[in-house]
Amino acid sequence: MERILATYRIAAPDSEIRARAEALAAEQSVEMPVSAIADRRVLDEIVASVVSIEPRNGAFDVTLGIAPATTGNEASQLLNMLFGNCSLQPEVELVDAAFPAGYEKGFPGPRFGIEGIRKMTGVPHRALTCSALKPQGAPAEHLAALARDFALGGLDVIKDDHGLANQAFSPFANRIPAVQRAIAAANRETGGNTVYAPTFSGGPAALREQARIAKAEGVRMALIAPMLVGVPAFIELQADLDLPILAHPAFGGASRIGPPLLLAKLFRLFGADATIFPNHGGRFSYSRETCLDIAKVAREPWNGARPILPVPAGGMTVERVPEMLAGYGNDTMLLIGGGLLAAGDKLLERCREFVRMVREPNA
Amino acid sequence: MERILATYRIAAPDSEIRARAEALAAEQSVEMPVSAIADRRVLDEIVASVVSIEPRNGAFDVTLGIAPATTGNEASQLLNMLFGNCSLQPEVELVDAAFPAGYEKGFPGPRFGIEGIRKMTGVPHRALTCSALKPQGAPAEHLAALARDFALGGLDVIKDDHGLANQAFSPFANRIPAVQRAIAAANRETGGNTVYAPTFSGGPAALREQARIAKAEGVRMALIAPMLVGVPAFIELQADLDLPILAHPAFGGASRIGPPLLLAKLFRLFGADATIFPNHGGRFSYSRETCLDIAKVAREPWNGARPILPVPAGGMTVERVPEMLAGYGNDTMLLIGGGLLAAGDKLLERCREFVRMVREPNA
Repeated sequence: MERILATYRIAAPDSEIRARAEALAAEQSVEMPVSAIADRRVLDEIVASVVSIEPRNGAFDVTLGIAPATTGNEASQLLNMLFGNCSLQPEVELVDAAFPAGYEKGFPGPRFGIEGIRKMTGVPHRALTCSALKPQGAPAEHLAALARDFALGGLDVIKDDHGLANQAFSPFANRIPAVQRAIAAANRETGGNTVYAPTFSGGPAALREQARIAKAEGVRMALIAPMLVGVPAFIELQADLDLPILAHPAFGGASRIGPPLLLAKLFRLFGADATIFPNHGGRFSYSRETCLDIAKVAREPWNGARPILPVPAGGMTVERVPEMLAGYGNDTMLLIGGGLLAAGDKLLERCREFVRMVREPNA
Repeated sequence: MERILATYRIAAPDSEIRARAEALAAEQSVEMPVSAIADRRVLDEIVASVVSIEPRNGAFDVTLGIAPATTGNEASQLLNMLFGNCSLQPEVELVDAAFPAGYEKGFPGPRFGIEGIRKMTGVPHRALTCSALKPQGAPAEHLAALARDFALGGLDVIKDDHGLANQAFSPFANRIPAVQRAIAAANRETGGNTVYAPTFSGGPAALREQARIAKAEGVRMALIAPMLVGVPAFIELQADLDLPILAHPAFGGASRIGPPLLLAKLFRLFGADATIFPNHGGRFSYSRETCLDIAKVAREPWNGARPILPVPAGGMTVERVPEMLAGYGNDTMLLIGGGLLAAGDKLLERCREFVRMVREPNA
């Protein structure tokens, strides 16, 4: 099989970049002096190669060819080969990785993707709407009442804040039934189809127990932060859940891994069906270009891997809906959390306004 | 309970730092406009507080008081509260966290620590020695032969390279018995007591299976990269294994989390018994001060949590042993990988030289 082409941005002087690139190739494969390797097969088939070195903005883009066999078709080992040791080297940033055709078949990939989420929410064409239950610390009844308003307001998806875990003040086992039932009741009243995506968190045993509770309650979507629960546990949980997965970027530390690579390409490879990312102009500093790139990589064709739904978020407001729709198009879910919650007593109205702007963009 | 004091280095202008700090306090707790929270208890007990703001090297050190209740005494949620969303904000670095007395009781912590590792290896006072089996891609017999030399040379611990996972070219199920038996045979010949620490990697199910194999083979120590397998899976595996845990820093991306915090304090809280870190002057750029700080934090008293063994590594050589011993003292394990392997045919000699320099430092 062809190599995985991993591109790193490296700050190094001109005179040293060739040696630096060779050192990186050793670091990210055999992690020992290549001169001490006698085995021809290891030299040919295992040691990473320096494919290209190109000057870029005062630094260099170094592309390594990493042997797919070294990743063992396993997520944590893929991350290890891409950015294990060199994540500790501050002058190195992992910018992108291109996988040979067929590599993705070694991973489950998204089980639902955009198409599955559209089917489940009953929204065939327009952009989707989403908000978040907050703040943590509020009792389950408060969150359930909030979820009721969001559902009455006609949102497509209501997710837990990613800070809602399994804390004593609203344990998963109490919160999920309360919220799920409040949304189901609102759906019955309105004939709507709002879907709840609770946060799954903790260790493998906790995740299994949460999956059990969620399925018993009829939960139809899941919010998970792959970098917090750990990518291999993230993947294993999917088989248990068999629900569309909304990936949260928390602990992504993505300023040293290219955000389109981590949040769109890798999360997609690892099975996310939708990926939340900090939109430009909000509380985070991603550029518009980076954000559009995330959306592009999430949706572009990738052999058998389903396209996934980009979910721009992070300090968004209802006023920005037209601009976001213009930028991201319809295969998008708009997530507004605090921007709705700030409406206080007017929450339901603000919610309906958000929904109307997405349903009737030209009104 | 008192607050967790988390310190962040933030690049922001003087005139904006107060607002930036308040925004960070909201981000790392309720993640919504604090003004939209009516619940007095949430405001008092859940929202993080700005404890101090101090100018430091042209930036600011902002200390937040994070409510322990928000972490639910669970590792992934603790990481979420410390550095979940703000890991995506490039101007923010997590420098340190001070936990209130008793907080550590909510975690297993190191089961063995320095004392347990000393007992297992039969080394009561001097520094310990360690090397690594490389390169990946080599067949199990090659790695076993290498392990035999390392054991004959008298090393205390032989670890897998962290790149040795469960790849087709030397699967865990073949490699571990071959290496463990080679070391046991060498121990019988020399009367020595060399311990093997194989790499555990992959998802929760794979980890359980690897634990089963390792225990059946009499493996006595484990090498795990918490950031690759995911911290909650790392913790859960410990109960299965009940062996001393050597933590590997791969994928730690520690340039945005203070290395002493991540590699010493947090890994210790999460149950590592020894922590590998890139020593100064090697292939990584940690300063001597940072490295000594990691060692200090690994060993300093922390109520009930056992001290753990610092393991400086990463491009070390036998020539540096005296200097490393002078810097780190005896409660240390010296890890030399490539620096031994580069000796080629003279591996066994180089190995014995390394061992002698540690056993008889004043010879």
